[in-house]
Amino acid sequence: MERIILAHGGGGRLSGQIISELFLKYFDNPILNALEDASLLNIEGKRLAFTTDSFVITPPFFPGGDIGKLAVCGTVNDLTMRGAKPLYLSAAFILEEGFPISDLEKIVKSMAETCEMAGAKIVAGDTKVVGKGAVDGIFINTTGIGIVDDHINISVKNAEVGDKIILTGTLGDHGIAILSIREGISFETEIKSDCSPLNLLFEGIFEKYGEYIHVMRDPTRGGLAAVLNEIASGSGKGILIYENRIPYKEEVLNACYMLGLDPLHLANEGKAVMIVSQDKAEEILNRLKEHPLGRDASIIGEVLDADKNVYLKTSIGTTRIVDVPAGELLPRIC
Amino acid sequence: MERIILAHGGGGRLSGQIISELFLKYFDNPILNALEDASLLNIEGKRLAFTTDSFVITPPFFPGGDIGKLAVCGTVNDLTMRGAKPLYLSAAFILEEGFPISDLEKIVKSMAETCEMAGAKIVAGDTKVVGKGAVDGIFINTTGIGIVDDHINISVKNAEVGDKIILTGTLGDHGIAILSIREGISFETEIKSDCSPLNLLFEGIFEKYGEYIHVMRDPTRGGLAAVLNEIASGSGKGILIYENRIPYKEEVLNACYMLGLDPLHLANEGKAVMIVSQDKAEEILNRLKEHPLGRDASIIGEVLDADKNVYLKTSIGTTRIVDVPAGELLPRIC
Repeated sequence: MERIILAHGGGGRLSGQIISELFLKYFDNPILNALEDASLLNIEGKRLAFTTDSFVITPPFFPGGDIGKLAVCGTVNDLTMRGAKPLYLSAAFILEEGFPISDLEKIVKSMAETCEMAGAKIVAGDTKVVGKGAVDGIFINTTGIGIVDDHINISVKNAEVGDKIILTGTLGDHGIAILSIREGISFETEIKSDCSPLNLLFEGIFEKYGEYIHVMRDPTRGGLAAVLNEIASGSGKGILIYENRIPYKEEVLNACYMLGLDPLHLANEGKAVMIVSQDKAEEILNRLKEHPLGRDASIIGEVLDADKNVYLKTSIGTTRIVDVPAGELLPRIC
Repeated sequence: MERIILAHGGGGRLSGQIISELFLKYFDNPILNALEDASLLNIEGKRLAFTTDSFVITPPFFPGGDIGKLAVCGTVNDLTMRGAKPLYLSAAFILEEGFPISDLEKIVKSMAETCEMAGAKIVAGDTKVVGKGAVDGIFINTTGIGIVDDHINISVKNAEVGDKIILTGTLGDHGIAILSIREGISFETEIKSDCSPLNLLFEGIFEKYGEYIHVMRDPTRGGLAAVLNEIASGSGKGILIYENRIPYKEEVLNACYMLGLDPLHLANEGKAVMIVSQDKAEEILNRLKEHPLGRDASIIGEVLDADKNVYLKTSIGTTRIVDVPAGELLPRIC
């Protein structure tokens, strides 16, 4: 009998397989089949974005955040990746018997603060408690609704040949932060998760440049490698990125060298990949850099008239194909 | 240090306490504070209902359904209890490493069939896999969006003195079905869960009688006792019900006698309590009885100009106060 393995939830190839062979097979409808970060609903003429995520990260408190902050940012960011303004969130908790109420309070407080920052409201909730051992501490589901302005049409399908690829900041901070605390590895400086509500970065940009933004994705599970492959296959185009244009924190790169990790596979929780019109790319980049969350933004590549592959031009001048991570780099990263 | 206990998720007094002392304290906003089965959102003039629920039932397959059917019905029913027409659902799975893929397929298929029946679509999803022992098998979160017609204004606050209380069918089927399979207790006839999408029962009724329906709730966790107390305290009225008007299946009552359970505390997954205008109660009742899901409907009591208590007139003529269940009758019932 075939059984679920960790990689089915890793955001890589096996995740894709279970989604297409099971979920799309039975739930089959055009909205779900689009496989966007957030689905677009047309309810009596209003375009609403809708997205769900469960958070199972371990440990629940980590440098730069906690499961509550992450749960709000994750859903706010998925709405933002569709060009939506986040409005309302639900929050559903599954708690293990014996979980300290003081920890729950810290988490709830952190969710409230992150919502306040993002300008979204938690308007529906649910709490389930299961016996000791039936869940590991605390899991949180957040599901969000946002509204999409008329001039915005962001979809994984929309990459055009010649478009520029912007990455809004350094790669891998979340992944290495979680890895370091979980495995007890310490570096010279503490690496913090980048966990942030990205709508703050994009508000003005959507208004001014909305029509020039073709695709957006946040490289969470599966990292930049997974996201760029999703865009290449979703839009039927090729993608070329330049290794020396990808921003990294020194400590993150060191950690990757030390641990033998590919930084393109590392998870991020406060970064976005944007595919934008060539002629507006510099303007958008400069605008991003004005905001603390976009300070390290960089144009890292472009969209090619090529097969649906992702190519990386390395610092030493060679070119290699960037594949979707097959398995699970680090389970329970979000 | 105070810790979470099972009763914090039981739908009774301790659930209420953690909601008000923790969630409402931090998330504080009028939509959430209303504590309805589904929240009412006003998005650019459209009234949408929004609700979330996680399902942690054990075992995942039970007489009359499975966790997938339950997850769809639960959310469809919460939308229906606000008078909404269910439109879109998200489905987020948390799976234990090693969970049989064939079981997952049965569950997904069952969700798809229930959605088809209810006329709702699953348009957003998420899958997380956690290591063996970090979750017990499978948990599912469903979050739903529905649309509310203009003439409908159903809220736990709206009970009026003189209103009649309708229960749409027999009480306790789900609770006893789960208990029997879990504890290996068998009865002469197999008791099946009543798990059903209730929007099917109400479609025509909302259209014709929407304005005469003041309150609706489905008596899930905490049972009829919890729901009537929520209505009494939400609307500031008293409630009187008559024991001999409450419909039960013979086997469910026998099981309660045998196990010493109060049937008013048992969970239901395909029944609703309605508080309706006195002069339309009979008409609505007759209409309900025409539908297979409402065949056993009964007017079980009325709303009183009294303190916020729930009174039960027993079959032997005495009156007792029906209290909110303090603890957890049966954990992981949904």
